[in-house]
Amino acid sequence: MSASEGSAPGSPQVIAYLDGRMVVLDQTRLPAETRHVALTTLDAVVRAIRTMVVRGAPLIGVTAAFGLCVALYDCRSRDEARARAPEALRALRGSRPTAVNLFWALERMEAALAALPEAGWMGALEREARAIHEDGVRQDQALIRHGLTLLAPGAVVLTHCNTGPLATGGLGTALGVLMGGHRELGGMHVFVDETRPRWQGAHLTTWELAQAGVPHTLIADNAAAFLMQRRPIHSVWVGADRIARNGDTANKIGTYHLALAAKHHAVPFYVAAPSSTVDLALADGRAIPIEERPPEEVTAPEGRALAPAGTRAWNPAFDITPAALIAAIVTERGVFRGPPYDLGTALA
Amino acid sequence: MSASEGSAPGSPQVIAYLDGRMVVLDQTRLPAETRHVALTTLDAVVRAIRTMVVRGAPLIGVTAAFGLCVALYDCRSRDEARARAPEALRALRGSRPTAVNLFWALERMEAALAALPEAGWMGALEREARAIHEDGVRQDQALIRHGLTLLAPGAVVLTHCNTGPLATGGLGTALGVLMGGHRELGGMHVFVDETRPRWQGAHLTTWELAQAGVPHTLIADNAAAFLMQRRPIHSVWVGADRIARNGDTANKIGTYHLALAAKHHAVPFYVAAPSSTVDLALADGRAIPIEERPPEEVTAPEGRALAPAGTRAWNPAFDITPAALIAAIVTERGVFRGPPYDLGTALA
Repeated sequence: MSASEGSAPGSPQVIAYLDGRMVVLDQTRLPAETRHVALTTLDAVVRAIRTMVVRGAPLIGVTAAFGLCVALYDCRSRDEARARAPEALRALRGSRPTAVNLFWALERMEAALAALPEAGWMGALEREARAIHEDGVRQDQALIRHGLTLLAPGAVVLTHCNTGPLATGGLGTALGVLMGGHRELGGMHVFVDETRPRWQGAHLTTWELAQAGVPHTLIADNAAAFLMQRRPIHSVWVGADRIARNGDTANKIGTYHLALAAKHHAVPFYVAAPSSTVDLALADGRAIPIEERPPEEVTAPEGRALAPAGTRAWNPAFDITPAALIAAIVTERGVFRGPPYDLGTALA
Repeated sequence: MSASEGSAPGSPQVIAYLDGRMVVLDQTRLPAETRHVALTTLDAVVRAIRTMVVRGAPLIGVTAAFGLCVALYDCRSRDEARARAPEALRALRGSRPTAVNLFWALERMEAALAALPEAGWMGALEREARAIHEDGVRQDQALIRHGLTLLAPGAVVLTHCNTGPLATGGLGTALGVLMGGHRELGGMHVFVDETRPRWQGAHLTTWELAQAGVPHTLIADNAAAFLMQRRPIHSVWVGADRIARNGDTANKIGTYHLALAAKHHAVPFYVAAPSSTVDLALADGRAIPIEERPPEEVTAPEGRALAPAGTRAWNPAFDITPAALIAAIVTERGVFRGPPYDLGTALA
């Protein structure tokens, strides 16, 4: 069978799967090195998600789906696979708590498991994982098409974290829209929040924009509000890790702070994410679990001590932006304008 | 004559001057190393200010005052000193543009120059520089006394950048108030913004709080608004580099963004600075010059590349917080509550 691919043209492949073996671009090495790593065991897949070798809510979902194939590839029968699946699913679900795409993708895989034929069961399971990936690529295309209706030629925009092809294994979400705006509308300039503590903006978004030839300027997260005070910003674009029915959005830490600044300056704040990011079980954002990551990401990022030894840090990886601060939610199903939002009805 | 000193008890000396030679704590080495450097030429003083070996608006003023003594120490007469002074003043004034304390201190020194006796002129000039330093230490004490009236026992507070003894060469301003609150009121907990791009919060404020035994927690700047959303914060405390008559305040980049979050959460936002930080020539903040520092502070902080080579960055060192977001301005002359503020009248 052919390897699963979905990379943007000209970019290194973000994820591929073939015959029980997954290869992913190690995103912790960017932008210094473009290095791929092979993931051939369940443990390796879980560790890659947890340590952010792969990251981005949609890509985490795809990685988990292929991860289940990796975990079950050496089973000798459908029934052995079904017997071993619960432990693998538990391990994958425990890798990161906030991005709902992980749980959504594994639910699809679990449904596929229940319907597996006895002969050719592995191929059927792999087809479902590949379908999750390919659906994501198509969803990115549709999402970008919808998002472009909110841009204008020459727009100067601001984005947080990384939501390009690296975040989805397809064409990207929020950053995909901005890259599409550069190609199709022209004249774009993208300001990029560096996105402490993990620097996805500095490491990944600048790298993707440079590869795509999109003019861009990096700023410290601290400069975002001052930027809006000093010059007209057309719109702010972010992705999402989980969206409640009312539009409350969990996304990378700093998103909420950024949305407050956008609101104050009357800059439209857009969330772009596939509909699989909407958690229809949640009425609002209060019940979204927020991952707290190791304090060393703040006190000693990438191994370099910034603060005295023993300094305590609080390191929430995500925050919740209330729907009231969001001007539109862009999905592959269309642009939903709010507030208020009723995504339960909109996506029914 | 005796060396000029004004350190907080138990802390390393931040600045000292004796006989044409200034010794300063190299704040770019903290918290890893407590290393002092001698500044014995005008060029060395200017470079130390520009590269932030010394920083903090009040300390920059003190350093510039002693710097003029360093520059003129080898003059053989009062008239030679007066002839050489303009060039030294120009160089010192060109070192950093935003903190008005620099210009204020050099105006005091220039007035002293004009009144120098022919005999003992150098001693008279040094006395003025020392008076600027000692006035600052006394002002810190008075400011802290006033600031404590805005705190409560057990207060959980948030601060940005560094405004402790390291920032003034005395007892500190905003952070001095919080350290005073720990000693006199008890039960304080200080959340510390790491303060990108130069990490004064992570490097310096955590270090000062640890030395003083004040419980504290470091956060990424991005987590500040989420912190306020998740738990009650008593108040936010920052210093200032220049304050206009109407209370508009230039301070470390990120201060404005933080003030927006505080306003949204109804958390009182306090600015603490000596009255010499008020620029009575400015009606509002629009005319305050904002220093833009090297882009490498964002793209490759402390020599470590975060972004691809060639990445552009915008790196304003300060921003302007409108007076409307400030609940009180604390000086050695008292607490001014606003908005609005009329500091021209209040400080007349």
